[in-house]
Amino acid sequence: MLYIGFDVGGTGVQVGVVNEKGEILCKGNMVTRTDIPVADQIKAMADCALETLGRSGYGLNDVKSLGAGLPGVVDPRTGHVAFCPNLGWKDVDFAGEMRKHIDKPVYMDNDATVAGLAENVAGVSAGAHSSVFLTLGTGVGGGIVIGGKVWSGFHGVGSEIGHMIIEMDGNPCNCGNRGCLERYCSATAIILAARAAVNQYQDSAIMAKCEGDPMKINAKMVFDAAKEGDELGLKLFNEYVKALSTTIVNIIHFLDPEVIALGGGVSKAGDFLLDALRKEVAHLVMYKTMPYARIELAKLGPDAGIIGAAMLGL
Amino acid sequence: MLYIGFDVGGTGVQVGVVNEKGEILCKGNMVTRTDIPVADQIKAMADCALETLGRSGYGLNDVKSLGAGLPGVVDPRTGHVAFCPNLGWKDVDFAGEMRKHIDKPVYMDNDATVAGLAENVAGVSAGAHSSVFLTLGTGVGGGIVIGGKVWSGFHGVGSEIGHMIIEMDGNPCNCGNRGCLERYCSATAIILAARAAVNQYQDSAIMAKCEGDPMKINAKMVFDAAKEGDELGLKLFNEYVKALSTTIVNIIHFLDPEVIALGGGVSKAGDFLLDALRKEVAHLVMYKTMPYARIELAKLGPDAGIIGAAMLGL
Repeated sequence: MLYIGFDVGGTGVQVGVVNEKGEILCKGNMVTRTDIPVADQIKAMADCALETLGRSGYGLNDVKSLGAGLPGVVDPRTGHVAFCPNLGWKDVDFAGEMRKHIDKPVYMDNDATVAGLAENVAGVSAGAHSSVFLTLGTGVGGGIVIGGKVWSGFHGVGSEIGHMIIEMDGNPCNCGNRGCLERYCSATAIILAARAAVNQYQDSAIMAKCEGDPMKINAKMVFDAAKEGDELGLKLFNEYVKALSTTIVNIIHFLDPEVIALGGGVSKAGDFLLDALRKEVAHLVMYKTMPYARIELAKLGPDAGIIGAAMLGL
Repeated sequence: MLYIGFDVGGTGVQVGVVNEKGEILCKGNMVTRTDIPVADQIKAMADCALETLGRSGYGLNDVKSLGAGLPGVVDPRTGHVAFCPNLGWKDVDFAGEMRKHIDKPVYMDNDATVAGLAENVAGVSAGAHSSVFLTLGTGVGGGIVIGGKVWSGFHGVGSEIGHMIIEMDGNPCNCGNRGCLERYCSATAIILAARAAVNQYQDSAIMAKCEGDPMKINAKMVFDAAKEGDELGLKLFNEYVKALSTTIVNIIHFLDPEVIALGGGVSKAGDFLLDALRKEVAHLVMYKTMPYARIELAKLGPDAGIIGAAMLGL
């Protein structure tokens, strides 16, 4: 059987026809239309899925279910999308609307959660009993898999790893609290920290990379400078590693999953980041002689959203 | 059927004959003998269990399994007790030794973990799908139940909630790290904070309660002073509530269990503590309009260890 997955973002929707191994057979995409009513947005997504299915050479009889990864929260009491700020959705019966156009079971979950599921089905943690996935992007998202199944929490408000507090009274976060992981380990946090520090390091390689304009700094420039041995680059990189290692060790000391996987733009720093994290985590874990979670880089890249959304129906 | 539970501590072992509802039918106890070889320690425990079973009026044919809650870590690879520092145990085949004397299935887990299971079977979180139990005692321990079953992690090193870091570069912990919850929310932490501050608050009610000798301060004196409106007592109590609320919110934002239950000596502060925690958690949770975990006081008290150990065999 086949599974249709939607990766719904604030600017675009990616759709894919996926087999039970998590392989994408055919892809489509559309612009996110927040300028039209929600029902019309969902109809446009259905049309895009049907068009993509047509191109795949298969038909609706081959499709078992539809799934969507959404930038928001699904309320398990109602089955509705509780809210997606980027889409302007609030209490939306996504499944009900979608089934008006494609009469198949419809599953939904948070976008970072489905990316974690994708890695657990077809990526770096394939077949793992339990895994925690961290998306290190503009923000920090999380996905938890236990017993091979997505765990979004009893009330649907879990796996918000970016808003776990690692420093009481720490940096203020957009959520209203202080010291959230997201304020230390998102690309945004790296950029803000570099902008705040770069004037004290006029000779930094970061200053050259941004052509003297701190507003042009991005996270890659900072980590590239660190790789080159630049003083400020290394300082910011080490602070990043410390904060992320603290969270990884908290996850080990709390849930102790089989695998912890890192995805998102910042994880493209690759082995440079991974090696530093593994070293710091080994230093911080309490039971030095017991095995603990493998820490790995995600494998699936931007396709994880489509694959994981589709695999919600597995 | 009946279940025998051992609650093994550094000074004493409690044993109980428990029915499938988590009710204790008969109890026994013995002094922990760390002065004799491990095999003899375990034989003495078996003898104590058989004597207690005899007093209950039942026989071995009525017993389905044995379980033990231990102050240490069980290695899921070997099934052995990996280490219990307080008992001087390292890589002990507890089940194998016990079965030489009582030929029944033997289960083991960490003491805080089984206390959490007990609450989930017969206590405040009875029947909950998922719960997290925090023991607020000399140290801080944790127990996680998911889908009605104990979750000690994939490698057996999870639910060490006392060693989740809530303040990078915070107070140094015995485990070698800094900023662990245990350094803020154990009875020990309360006592150390009070001792360090009390000389600046000579008029504090705490000073009267400890008869002017800071070495006599205990956690109850500090929280009792807070209840009376004492300035230092309230300052220390508010710091305690802030640190524990931070951890509770981290658990909500990560795992999102159905219930979070608080046990151990410090939880005897009762509604005074619970009300303050609930208020602060409500302030800190990210999704203000979504439901989240019920925060409750544990119900079973010191019997939780026996009951939970027995219920490992359910």
